[in-house]
Amino acid sequence: MRDENARLRVAILGASGYAGGELTRLLLAHPRVELALLAANESAGRTLAEVHPHLAGSPAGGWVLAPLVAAAAAEQASFAFLSLPHGASAALAPTLLDAGLRVVDLAGDFRLPAAAYPAWYGFDHPAPAWLEKAVYGLPEVFADDIAGASLVANPGCYPTPVVLGLAPLRSAGLIGPGPIVVDGKTGLSGAGRALAEATSYAATEDSVRPYRFPTHQHTPEMERVLELACGIPTTVSFVPHLVPSVRGVLVTCYAPLAHGATTDSLTACLASAYASAPFVRVLPQGEMADTKRTRGSNLVELQAVADRRTGTAIVAGALDNLVKGAAGQAVQNMNLMAGFEQTTGLTATAVYP
Amino acid sequence: MRDENARLRVAILGASGYAGGELTRLLLAHPRVELALLAANESAGRTLAEVHPHLAGSPAGGWVLAPLVAAAAAEQASFAFLSLPHGASAALAPTLLDAGLRVVDLAGDFRLPAAAYPAWYGFDHPAPAWLEKAVYGLPEVFADDIAGASLVANPGCYPTPVVLGLAPLRSAGLIGPGPIVVDGKTGLSGAGRALAEATSYAATEDSVRPYRFPTHQHTPEMERVLELACGIPTTVSFVPHLVPSVRGVLVTCYAPLAHGATTDSLTACLASAYASAPFVRVLPQGEMADTKRTRGSNLVELQAVADRRTGTAIVAGALDNLVKGAAGQAVQNMNLMAGFEQTTGLTATAVYP
Amino acid sequence: MRDENARLRVAILGASGYAGGELTRLLLAHPRVELALLAANESAGRTLAEVHPHLAGSPAGGWVLAPLVAAAAAEQASFAFLSLPHGASAALAPTLLDAGLRVVDLAGDFRLPAAAYPAWYGFDHPAPAWLEKAVYGLPEVFADDIAGASLVANPGCYPTPVVLGLAPLRSAGLIGPGPIVVDGKTGLSGAGRALAEATSYAATEDSVRPYRFPTHQHTPEMERVLELACGIPTTVSFVPHLVPSVRGVLVTCYAPLAHGATTDSLTACLASAYASAPFVRVLPQGEMADTKRTRGSNLVELQAVADRRTGTAIVAGALDNLVKGAAGQAVQNMNLMAGFEQTTGLTATAVYP
Amino acid sequence: MRDENARLRVAILGASGYAGGELTRLLLAHPRVELALLAANESAGRTLAEVHPHLAGSPAGGWVLAPLVAAAAAEQASFAFLSLPHGASAALAPTLLDAGLRVVDLAGDFRLPAAAYPAWYGFDHPAPAWLEKAVYGLPEVFADDIAGASLVANPGCYPTPVVLGLAPLRSAGLIGPGPIVVDGKTGLSGAGRALAEATSYAATEDSVRPYRFPTHQHTPEMERVLELACGIPTTVSFVPHLVPSVRGVLVTCYAPLAHGATTDSLTACLASAYASAPFVRVLPQGEMADTKRTRGSNLVELQAVADRRTGTAIVAGALDNLVKGAAGQAVQNMNLMAGFEQTTGLTATAVYP
Repeated sequence: MRDENARLRVAILGASGYAGGELTRLLLAHPRVELALLAANESAGRTLAEVHPHLAGSPAGGWVLAPLVAAAAAEQASFAFLSLPHGASAALAPTLLDAGLRVVDLAGDFRLPAAAYPAWYGFDHPAPAWLEKAVYGLPEVFADDIAGASLVANPGCYPTPVVLGLAPLRSAGLIGPGPIVVDGKTGLSGAGRALAEATSYAATEDSVRPYRFPTHQHTPEMERVLELACGIPTTVSFVPHLVPSVRGVLVTCYAPLAHGATTDSLTACLASAYASAPFVRVLPQGEMADTKRTRGSNLVELQAVADRRTGTAIVAGALDNLVKGAAGQAVQNMNLMAGFEQTTGLTATAVYP
Repeated sequence: MRDENARLRVAILGASGYAGGELTRLLLAHPRVELALLAANESAGRTLAEVHPHLAGSPAGGWVLAPLVAAAAAEQASFAFLSLPHGASAALAPTLLDAGLRVVDLAGDFRLPAAAYPAWYGFDHPAPAWLEKAVYGLPEVFADDIAGASLVANPGCYPTPVVLGLAPLRSAGLIGPGPIVVDGKTGLSGAGRALAEATSYAATEDSVRPYRFPTHQHTPEMERVLELACGIPTTVSFVPHLVPSVRGVLVTCYAPLAHGATTDSLTACLASAYASAPFVRVLPQGEMADTKRTRGSNLVELQAVADRRTGTAIVAGALDNLVKGAAGQAVQNMNLMAGFEQTTGLTATAVYP
Repeated sequence: MRDENARLRVAILGASGYAGGELTRLLLAHPRVELALLAANESAGRTLAEVHPHLAGSPAGGWVLAPLVAAAAAEQASFAFLSLPHGASAALAPTLLDAGLRVVDLAGDFRLPAAAYPAWYGFDHPAPAWLEKAVYGLPEVFADDIAGASLVANPGCYPTPVVLGLAPLRSAGLIGPGPIVVDGKTGLSGAGRALAEATSYAATEDSVRPYRFPTHQHTPEMERVLELACGIPTTVSFVPHLVPSVRGVLVTCYAPLAHGATTDSLTACLASAYASAPFVRVLPQGEMADTKRTRGSNLVELQAVADRRTGTAIVAGALDNLVKGAAGQAVQNMNLMAGFEQTTGLTATAVYP
Repeated sequence: MRDENARLRVAILGASGYAGGELTRLLLAHPRVELALLAANESAGRTLAEVHPHLAGSPAGGWVLAPLVAAAAAEQASFAFLSLPHGASAALAPTLLDAGLRVVDLAGDFRLPAAAYPAWYGFDHPAPAWLEKAVYGLPEVFADDIAGASLVANPGCYPTPVVLGLAPLRSAGLIGPGPIVVDGKTGLSGAGRALAEATSYAATEDSVRPYRFPTHQHTPEMERVLELACGIPTTVSFVPHLVPSVRGVLVTCYAPLAHGATTDSLTACLASAYASAPFVRVLPQGEMADTKRTRGSNLVELQAVADRRTGTAIVAGALDNLVKGAAGQAVQNMNLMAGFEQTTGLTATAVYP
């Protein structure tokens, strides 16, 4: 018989980056979780307070980060989050999985077919068998598969709003089968915590610029998951941009508008698809998606407009890249996998302004 | 017999400003509170979602703001927060208090002696009798008085870290009786929600400027409360500044250093004073106070340094002006007044970065 | 015989907005111009120092802004800039033109065919005869026409980099005839100086959001001018976005890539087109367009990439919306009209960082 | 006989940092200067366009930075700017000076007495003889000495507005002899171009924090120069802060107000002192100093207020730390040393907003 009060013993492997810090923040406040292990690579041996000073005041402030050893994690926890650089997750995950842990990977290591890794990620996938078993962790679309999965590939920050915004429209035939343009804008936390002149304050204030296109690794992820969700192959041309903010991803998607589709029908389709989704807010006509209203929350805002003059369906989606775009969605996946309410530990509204 | 599960019926009068929105956010998530009434002046008749779109996704998104009528509030609630422009609170509060409600006022209307209002606030106080009964709501210093008060004057955002940082040092004789300089820096949410060119994005990016000195109304508040707390009259020279950020107040205080006092003794004194204060973090030597680490939380960071070369005690304090500097502190006061745990509904850590 | 040292007597009608302030800044430093009149509507009677405090230290700081009276301007100047709200220029310009002045209009009043004004600007054009004579003021494309024009329609901030980036590629057949997507990002100075909560600092920091699409009035301007420049009708789907910065427009354009076109051939085409254009910098492969490097200068950065996998030509363009996107381009047009060197008064490099 | 058209051959040693880039920008546009050499340490061998991409469009974009060799610089130039880390200037300057070059040093290596270097800068001064001959380069106070100097120590960004704001008041007896508090705020360009997490965008947005106090090396510089300028020893307690902006220093100074002094008399004293200073703007009563209005220009704004209630003279000063706080002031010094008009090459007004 299940103990209703038992807490899930959770390890975070890769606790020192921004996503790792956000996972720690969310899980420290999660009523069904016991944080059993925080591990990191270069930051091993430092306290949580040193690595994430904003958590210094929490009871966990004095905890010491352990080294990244999968076997040790497997002994201390029954559930693991991997928040590591691309490539490192795929190397560590099998040990954890073989030991019986359930795993959510926040990197891109389990999101694509094995054949795509050399071209888009620059490495040969070391665990193709596990890759085939991995479930794509977008709860609003794949909740049933996630609930039963051992290994969940947490979606990228850009693909999340793109798939949420386009999949219902494509499934309903409101957008046609042609190619899609996705223009993405992200804040600097999306660039990670590693140092670079391009991410300094002096170089970023009043700077808007594209980066790493058309080779960004979220491109094939969007294409693959849209096909998974709708059954229709899709081509995506994607350009991400850095804008002067810290949190927040906004995507603007341009797709072929089906004959007869209107802003009304697009909006109604999305509203219906997410009527019972606690973290998706479909905006009424005329309201504009805004990243700021999602900051610190697990919310996604979706807005759809039919530009009938040019035959284009335009869908904008906004979220906090560290929450619904990373750590919050990972916790949502864990909730599903562990049989908790999907919203457990994720009810905070945005901190605004 | 007290019903442990009964929720306190709370009204917010002045729910449309930034502090009102923050109160609403905090109280919607407070486990012992039932939000019975949201009222506003010009925004009466609009929904919460229209006035605070970041709360549109909450269950209260559809609530309609009521007009500001004290008698109506008195019927629907047993506890009221006033988050109104200076002068408006003093006019409304007596009706609520006479009807038996307990009240926390977030304006400056009950913080000073009656005689000070014409000079510093520009009006004659309309309710001097209630003013005399008001308790200054700084829980770390006046918790006992607050618990029994009917009317609590919630402190200003600047006086909060100034008094928390200086009162223990002055009481312990580590800073001398001479005049104090307080240099304050605030983000733009401290300037309120009213429109002005000076608070536009275009005028604010890359702009640092002082404002309204030496006549800022928090000056006599600092002087009075330091005297209340320490029993020693104090003179404060205060200059506030606007800096390009949204949330966050940092104060830097310069006081006469007592003979023999050191950074060690200053730090130890503060650490001892707040050893059991859940929302005060005294920084270890060498760590710098940082507003960003308090954003969205009820935390105050305090840092003390002895500049022995010049005989100056330097105390820096950082907080989120909308939380510990306004709505969070108001909820902390309510918790004390209602007999709840002081931290109820206030345990969120900062959203960082 | 022309007096080489004679200065052009110039009036600015609409000197109080951001573009008007930038015009004033540039023309005060222009060696061939005498600023004969600064006029404004609501700000008439105030000094330049009051209206634009950053110019308070200039010799013109004490000048008083005159009321907006076309006849008076016609007496005092031989050249006029109109920097007024849409609709106001079209009403004033004929008086100036009939009096023999040459005019550059920074509003949208002379950029479209008369038939387009009701739908895109919301008014019937009051001066269709002058509209037909107006020349579109993009010097890199229409220099000869501009030199001889009486009335020049200064381009919009978004159409400038779009047309500069796409016209040579389309003319050369490197992009096909199909529809184009333009995703624009602007800083807040592009939203003008009027007060609105949406442009406050508190609402803008960490906020990225689209606005006024798909009905933004720069859409038909892009379509028309691309056709003018290339002779091929074009459809543009355009979504502009506000990002947290003050100056800077970045456009990202997605067009059908012609068979066989490569990043090399796109880049070479642009480099050749602008080999002698002093204000256009075509970026070498791998360098990303960045608004920050254009701030305060009349420079445009253009970057072209062939996404051969999806058949998309991607062109990014960056400029300072108040300089090359408004006042600087207007001065460049004046230089051509007056027979000055195109770069006179416009040689300042960007202020970076 | 002096050739009026001869250009001064100038070398910049240390051209790769922010101050070096600003020097390059200003000198490329200076009508009396020929930039003969750009040299750098780690960036030697790279082009100017690679090191400072915002200058890529200038004629000098293709220049290659030379290695830092004093003897080579001495052969190519007759005037040198040193924009190097503290300690490096003192090692290089003697070679240049002995070869007959005149030198402006932007580091702190020639600003203090030799005895102060171990404590405040952490090194023993290697060239005490040249140190004694160095002139402090604050043109508004020491113009005559600068004109005849071989070696000028360019002031620090914080001391510049502090000395300009306080020296005339102290000399006139409007502020008394007691200790002074200086609270400084700087943008991130003041932290230099070296990489650090603390200066990343993610760590800086919405962050206000003090740094390196009370040991900041500008403290003894303020004390020494105030004494040099006024003949009265002075003690300064100084705390600098980082605020989220790129350019701009604001200092707020608190000094003992002399009996009888008023805001009027303070303001009149400053206005009189700088009546003929082209780069100092004394604000009229009620106007607040604002860093944004100085951005990109060599302007200083000064504001003085008498807080008679507490007996405090409050002086605020604002400037662009890379222009009047570094490169602009260095060019102003060069102009004086070379016999040019003080304002040559420095007439640009601020780029606002």
